[in-house]
Amino acid sequence: MAELRIALAQTNPTMGDLTGNAQRIAELSSQARKAGAQLVVFGELAICGYPPEDLLLKRHFLEDNLRTVQELAGQCRDIPVIVGLAEPAEHGCYNCAAVLADGKIAGVYRKIHLPNYGVFDERRYFLPGDSPTILRINGQQLALTICEDIWADVDLAKLLGGKARVQGLINISASPFHAGKMSLRQELLTERARQLAGPVCYVNLVGGQDELVFDGGSMITDAAGRIIAAGRRFAEDLLVADVPLPAPDKKGKSPGKARRITVESKPPAKIPAIPARPVAKMSNLQEIYDALVLGTRDYTMKNGFSKVVLGLSGGIDSGLTAAIAVDAMGAENVIALTMPSQYSSAGTRSDTVAMAENLGIKLITVGVQEVFEKYLEVLSEAYGSGRGKLENENLQARIRANMLMALSNRFGWLVLATGNKSEVAVGYCTLYGDMVGGFGVLKDVFKTTVYKLSGYVNDKAGRALIPASILERAPSAELRPDQKDSDSLPPYDLLDEILKRYVEEDKALDDIIAEGFEADLVREVTRLVDHNEFKRRQSAPGVKITPKAFGRDRRLPITNRYR
Amino acid sequence: MAELRIALAQTNPTMGDLTGNAQRIAELSSQARKAGAQLVVFGELAICGYPPEDLLLKRHFLEDNLRTVQELAGQCRDIPVIVGLAEPAEHGCYNCAAVLADGKIAGVYRKIHLPNYGVFDERRYFLPGDSPTILRINGQQLALTICEDIWADVDLAKLLGGKARVQGLINISASPFHAGKMSLRQELLTERARQLAGPVCYVNLVGGQDELVFDGGSMITDAAGRIIAAGRRFAEDLLVADVPLPAPDKKGKSPGKARRITVESKPPAKIPAIPARPVAKMSNLQEIYDALVLGTRDYTMKNGFSKVVLGLSGGIDSGLTAAIAVDAMGAENVIALTMPSQYSSAGTRSDTVAMAENLGIKLITVGVQEVFEKYLEVLSEAYGSGRGKLENENLQARIRANMLMALSNRFGWLVLATGNKSEVAVGYCTLYGDMVGGFGVLKDVFKTTVYKLSGYVNDKAGRALIPASILERAPSAELRPDQKDSDSLPPYDLLDEILKRYVEEDKALDDIIAEGFEADLVREVTRLVDHNEFKRRQSAPGVKITPKAFGRDRRLPITNRYR
Repeated sequence: MAELRIALAQTNPTMGDLTGNAQRIAELSSQARKAGAQLVVFGELAICGYPPEDLLLKRHFLEDNLRTVQELAGQCRDIPVIVGLAEPAEHGCYNCAAVLADGKIAGVYRKIHLPNYGVFDERRYFLPGDSPTILRINGQQLALTICEDIWADVDLAKLLGGKARVQGLINISASPFHAGKMSLRQELLTERARQLAGPVCYVNLVGGQDELVFDGGSMITDAAGRIIAAGRRFAEDLLVADVPLPAPDKKGKSPGKARRITVESKPPAKIPAIPARPVAKMSNLQEIYDALVLGTRDYTMKNGFSKVVLGLSGGIDSGLTAAIAVDAMGAENVIALTMPSQYSSAGTRSDTVAMAENLGIKLITVGVQEVFEKYLEVLSEAYGSGRGKLENENLQARIRANMLMALSNRFGWLVLATGNKSEVAVGYCTLYGDMVGGFGVLKDVFKTTVYKLSGYVNDKAGRALIPASILERAPSAELRPDQKDSDSLPPYDLLDEILKRYVEEDKALDDIIAEGFEADLVREVTRLVDHNEFKRRQSAPGVKITPKAFGRDRRLPITNRYR
Repeated sequence: MAELRIALAQTNPTMGDLTGNAQRIAELSSQARKAGAQLVVFGELAICGYPPEDLLLKRHFLEDNLRTVQELAGQCRDIPVIVGLAEPAEHGCYNCAAVLADGKIAGVYRKIHLPNYGVFDERRYFLPGDSPTILRINGQQLALTICEDIWADVDLAKLLGGKARVQGLINISASPFHAGKMSLRQELLTERARQLAGPVCYVNLVGGQDELVFDGGSMITDAAGRIIAAGRRFAEDLLVADVPLPAPDKKGKSPGKARRITVESKPPAKIPAIPARPVAKMSNLQEIYDALVLGTRDYTMKNGFSKVVLGLSGGIDSGLTAAIAVDAMGAENVIALTMPSQYSSAGTRSDTVAMAENLGIKLITVGVQEVFEKYLEVLSEAYGSGRGKLENENLQARIRANMLMALSNRFGWLVLATGNKSEVAVGYCTLYGDMVGGFGVLKDVFKTTVYKLSGYVNDKAGRALIPASILERAPSAELRPDQKDSDSLPPYDLLDEILKRYVEEDKALDDIIAEGFEADLVREVTRLVDHNEFKRRQSAPGVKITPKAFGRDRRLPITNRYR
């Protein structure tokens, strides 16, 4: 059985940094060659980052994309390289896998299946390709595909222009993370390998881009669909494996309709074969946590910040956010601001101090009471008579926001928002108050998952990094005396179950009620979700970790009377 | 020559209010019949509103859509009705024109060309239809089309399944406004009528939906492409005309591939023919102004607010916003808040009072100085040594925002943001400060257009509603002594020219410089545009009036190093 030593390089591109991304690709290509690889494969749009959104409507961006890859080809003469780029066309562009060999672009495969659902808008940008494409390397034949091409419910043989005589498949992807997606990918690759009776080499990007995190986890299967090598999750990696290729089926039809790109590559250097790397098992909580850390770090660093600041309240959301921030940026780059008021309990005050000490982060205390009283004094005439409630709770939250923003603006720190998905869903948060921030770390994390992740953080640390008293105290916004979240909201375990059905599964009210949830409660929760679209539209971006996040994943009108 | 009396009904649907929208459709159908019409035609997705976005992913929404139209058919037995709806299919839905006759849905045309650019995402939601469809009414044959079908660069004959024997064309649209679009529509309809050698009946929606305004302006052409009747702009309307239909071309090919929907309709009642209504000419400023008024009114009312509040500074942006708000909501429903500080000049203070008096709106004064000083006192330790500047300018803007929001929350008023497109483009505005608001009236209006519109407002009023001193004073944020916008920004006429090229036309830096703009200035302006994407992402929605607005029209990554 023939063999090819293939390297999969999962890079963490920075959006639009063509030069920087190309340099990293050149470095890893060189490393791959040193490891004896005969071919190195990078992810989808690895040259520019994914998704470039409306950058793809700029003609000069497309031309710079192509020029950068042409120059890259000149630098990678000693190993054939496959790399994703956006290729300019007369009217638009293609999402391509370019094969670089002998100092030039030897050919391109143009993505045929363009996803246009969920977070994807590829029909807005790309023309669909129409030619299955085969890489012929040292006489071996590998089909080239890009991401959705193998996810789409299509006849694989048709996609490959007649599967016979194709001995394996390469897929370059930009597959965003959500919890549990890795196992879907494994199942898919196994199935595709079996259909093809050949190995599948799947390379994914890694890194955060606004709301998306690409989680790496590149994989190579054998012809039976067994995963023979796996890349790291949530980190750059170069995965090298000797891939066994079945002999071509001589009786099979020639892939007549397919375009061919032919390259030759030197046999591997006489260095030992790379030991197969098994798939690392990660728990659900571990992968969510790592996604939050990577998403936070990359948003912060790629946007040019080196330090972050957050409001630490003594509650669980800000406690978990601080722990994530420390893992993302290092304790020395995380500043906590605590802003107690008359409604802050002794418990939350001491927990705030304990939390900051446990994490080793700087804690700054700024009171809000005096400013709050001054506002009320100045506003008293405009307020007129009659008691208020909500406006003054919101006002306190907005004073805290102003304190955070003042320090952010003065010192150049990025503000991390600490709200969770349950709150943001029902609007139990103050617009321009606790919602402020450049990045909302827990935006897609339900409150029940916040608790589980906090337990995970403590287990990982081997101590109560997040003090037990924070985990046990009934959640409260502490904006009026003895306030509890449960005064306004159902218990979070119940709320989150309703939210999952309504937000993530798009179920109708009647269907949720039919599952046994109380009708009035379902009506109220879903009414709140609908009504608070306006708040979410002005919220910071945050890491998508569920199959459907608020943001580009779920796009509802603000003005909307449908119930 | 045969004739058909056709009514075009441009309604202002409320998104998702299926029952309310259907009721209005039934009312106008009845009025159309009373006017002797033999057919009444409503706009694209008139039953639910356009664009429903991810409501279309909810199965129950689609089913409710269909059920509502079925029930509507039962109410409109005395006249055939064409109405747009989202029709559920096994996997997704179609964007349809349903023909209602004899108490049921006699047939549907499914939109073939689905726009997926600019503000449109129809490939995310709709399956494309594949059958040209002919309405056969009293033996006359009219082709049915939906919006993009006639804009797309296609062979009209092919779209109609062979144009011969088709005597006219109906197009139901949801065509969003931008300045100058009306004349594009007129040219298109004239061209299509001539290609067809038959009349074109074009019906558009009207009303605001989040960032979009549908401007009405429905039209009927004769076979020569002359507009023989036109609907109102920016208002609901029922347009009734006797449409002359050429005799079918007996030699032409039968439209064999086309689906047919056959209905009979009583001849017109013996009432006089409707006199043709000519196209109302509107100046560029008039249509922009009317779009801003309608967009503001509809966003406010459809979201359940009856009053609006805004910060009135004595500057031109808030002055124009107030004038628009008064035209949208009535003076009694507009509250102005003036929040002078030590940096407010005597001129802006007196202009604020004059402006409020001219408009007849309530003016509330709340000082910010004392609160500002209290913040600085409380923050002094955290600030440490060293002079600040920007953080304290921002802080003042944010204190004003808190005052506005406190009153908004207390009294249930919608806050209107007053920033213009030039400011928002380069980030010359404070996030959570002057950017706060439920709706940003001038979000898509360049500063140079703000001046022109202010002149238009005064011309229309026949007096200086916006005082001359406001129009003449050099723009200033008044956040530090003797501050002028021109300290930080190039003159607005120059800035706006660069912005148009970079933001609306997606031109490269080099191309803009090649046009004669100073290189360093172009680099700085475009850098500011790129850098401030994060602010815009948290901004309020506002009316789109240009070919490319910030928001759903222009989708750039926040994290982006491309220059």
